[in-house]
Amino acid sequence: MAVYVQALEAMLQENMNVVSSEGLAAACNVNSSQIRKDLAYFGEFGVRGVGYYIQDLLAAMREYLGINREWNCALVGVGNLGRALLRHKQLARKGFLIVAAFDCDPFKIGEVVAGHEIFCTRRLKERKQDLGIEIGMIATPPERAQRATNHLIEAGVKGIINFAPAIVHVPDDTVIDYVDFSQNLITLAFQLSSHPSS
Amino acid sequence: MAVYVQALEAMLQENMNVVSSEGLAAACNVNSSQIRKDLAYFGEFGVRGVGYYIQDLLAAMREYLGINREWNCALVGVGNLGRALLRHKQLARKGFLIVAAFDCDPFKIGEVVAGHEIFCTRRLKERKQDLGIEIGMIATPPERAQRATNHLIEAGVKGIINFAPAIVHVPDDTVIDYVDFSQNLITLAFQLSSHPSS
Repeated sequence: MAVYVQALEAMLQENMNVVSSEGLAAACNVNSSQIRKDLAYFGEFGVRGVGYYIQDLLAAMREYLGINREWNCALVGVGNLGRALLRHKQLARKGFLIVAAFDCDPFKIGEVVAGHEIFCTRRLKERKQDLGIEIGMIATPPERAQRATNHLIEAGVKGIINFAPAIVHVPDDTVIDYVDFSQNLITLAFQLSSHPSS
Repeated sequence: MAVYVQALEAMLQENMNVVSSEGLAAACNVNSSQIRKDLAYFGEFGVRGVGYYIQDLLAAMREYLGINREWNCALVGVGNLGRALLRHKQLARKGFLIVAAFDCDPFKIGEVVAGHEIFCTRRLKERKQDLGIEIGMIATPPERAQRATNHLIEAGVKGIINFAPAIVHVPDDTVIDYVDFSQNLITLAFQLSSHPSS
């Protein structure tokens, strides 16, 4: 679903108004019957023989996905990956605003990266209140990921996305999602092994 | 499947020999009926009332996934994200070895990052032959992702993983996979919107 949003946004930027399921399929590298199935819920935005009205479909999808608004995010861990996230313009463009950055390294505290002053991780709770932080992004080394998670939980953050290659434990009322590069690589290795090319 | 491999590897490191489907389910945050379904193919490694023999199951899964061997990878784009990937110890541990790093910025060419000398992207084809590169990782800014893809394709790399927030086009004989942080964030936003907590 998120892939469709991305493709539709690109089409809108190119001043397109309508897209066929075949056109959307090609842009997303899926087949058009899959598109029609996935978009069944949004059927009212499709017109037989014409396609989908991009702007209306996009607005409905954004509302359904909860991205018709901005989300304030806190970054914990300002290493190379954290810096890449702070400079990742697409995240802000998609409504995910990093409003605060934290690290436990005293040499980093006070440093300003991409306009963000780095605060001590212990100040998460206080900053969470002030800034209305709803999502925590963990970009620490793996061995510090659980500690970062605990700081976020203690601060009352209910949504966490973990970029560190480590499984962390959260209470039932907290949503955790992982960005694990190695899993994408494993998928790729599987595809390369199953479909050997000349 | 890749999640199970990760959990099983962690268990093996803790000197466990056998795991129940409930135990594996808990470690992976999925339910045990899902586990049994997913592992049906590997049924011979499960013993009723006992569980799965971790080492045998892991070996079979690794072979099935094509990760019972090493894969030589090339990184294109040595910004913050590229540097994070070059220093990402887990990737090498899982068999994805970054054997070469490329960038088109003349100020970066010749620099050594995490033991890797950065080469001009134009030398990809030559280095691909020498080093047996099979997978390309793109960590360029989005506007340079297609150019990096083209360099990889011209060099004969058949598997590409794109970390840049941009859709790229590849020929039919090339496998492309995306690591798109914003999609994980959208999933998280959806979960936070659908399951509001107190």
